[in-house]
Amino acid sequence: MPPTSETLTAERILAATEEVLRRHGPAKATVVDVARALGVSHGSVYRHFRTKAALREAVTKRWLDRTTQVLAGIAADTGRDPEARVREWLAALFAAKRSKAGDDPELFATYSVLTDGAGEVVGAHITELTDQLTEIVRAGAEAGIFTVTDSATAARALFQATARFHDPGYAKEWQQPGVEGEFEAVVDLLVRGLSA
Amino acid sequence: MPPTSETLTAERILAATEEVLRRHGPAKATVVDVARALGVSHGSVYRHFRTKAALREAVTKRWLDRTTQVLAGIAADTGRDPEARVREWLAALFAAKRSKAGDDPELFATYSVLTDGAGEVVGAHITELTDQLTEIVRAGAEAGIFTVTDSATAARALFQATARFHDPGYAKEWQQPGVEGEFEAVVDLLVRGLSA
Repeated sequence: MPPTSETLTAERILAATEEVLRRHGPAKATVVDVARALGVSHGSVYRHFRTKAALREAVTKRWLDRTTQVLAGIAADTGRDPEARVREWLAALFAAKRSKAGDDPELFATYSVLTDGAGEVVGAHITELTDQLTEIVRAGAEAGIFTVTDSATAARALFQATARFHDPGYAKEWQQPGVEGEFEAVVDLLVRGLSA
Repeated sequence: MPPTSETLTAERILAATEEVLRRHGPAKATVVDVARALGVSHGSVYRHFRTKAALREAVTKRWLDRTTQVLAGIAADTGRDPEARVREWLAALFAAKRSKAGDDPELFATYSVLTDGAGEVVGAHITELTDQLTEIVRAGAEAGIFTVTDSATAARALFQATARFHDPGYAKEWQQPGVEGEFEAVVDLLVRGLSA
């Protein structure tokens, strides 16, 4: 039974958009492609997404949000030791990116093309992530475990210093032997720096 | 007066190769192009470089070596405080890369293409750089200023954690306002980690 426009939510359109991207690559996934894949009129899709650009931004945001949501739980778990949470948060970020890149390399490559053209969406994503990390650093500073004067600056430094382990440009390195030891060495040095 | 093959050194060929690359981009710079630019027979150039691949590797190595040479002086200056030397070495690496990228963007882009295809040359370059950094970290550990158990691991972590400030993939970020403050924050955290 083909879906009708009555059940056509933004989420269903975005799931279909991801499928179109997965099968046909970043050049595809116009509003018309997606409407065809859903078996609905393109007018129905336009009611949710006015342009191809809006659709692409939304599907890119959805992809990035999956990572943010995984990490939000760690950032919010204020009962636990901030040092353990910093380590766990950075490890979860690395694991999330690595599994996205390793489990479905074509889709990862497609999203890498989309994020290149989505400066604002990516900027907002990085802000969300560093805000989460700032929360953890601030909790550590307030508890006297971290000796940092500006939690936001320290969080941004942590995020930038671990770029090798979350920036998609390094995805090839994530498959190399020894990468976990490299990650541990960087995180150890940084966490010692926070606690110094 | 056109140069003769008697005065044709490897260095002169490489300087001419860089000029060919600067003018015509990474697709150019075959042995024949370079011979023409020098006004010599291609046989004379082949005596120094047997293939286009060998010529490209050599010119890429020469380009990378310029950075290594600048930094070698800081690494060898063993009379000075290791903490100051780590900071100075990382700042000099950032400055060297940033000026290469900013002063001659076309040539930088050309060399970025060449380094992508020169895994071994780039690998050797990174090894040379981390060896220099290891020397400084080891001096600090021996003086009891740094509390690290494995100087080579710590040096590699320092190098990887500062990738945003030397990896050519981030060249666009180096022109952003605030990048110097970001660099300082990362280096502060790392140096505190070494000294913890």
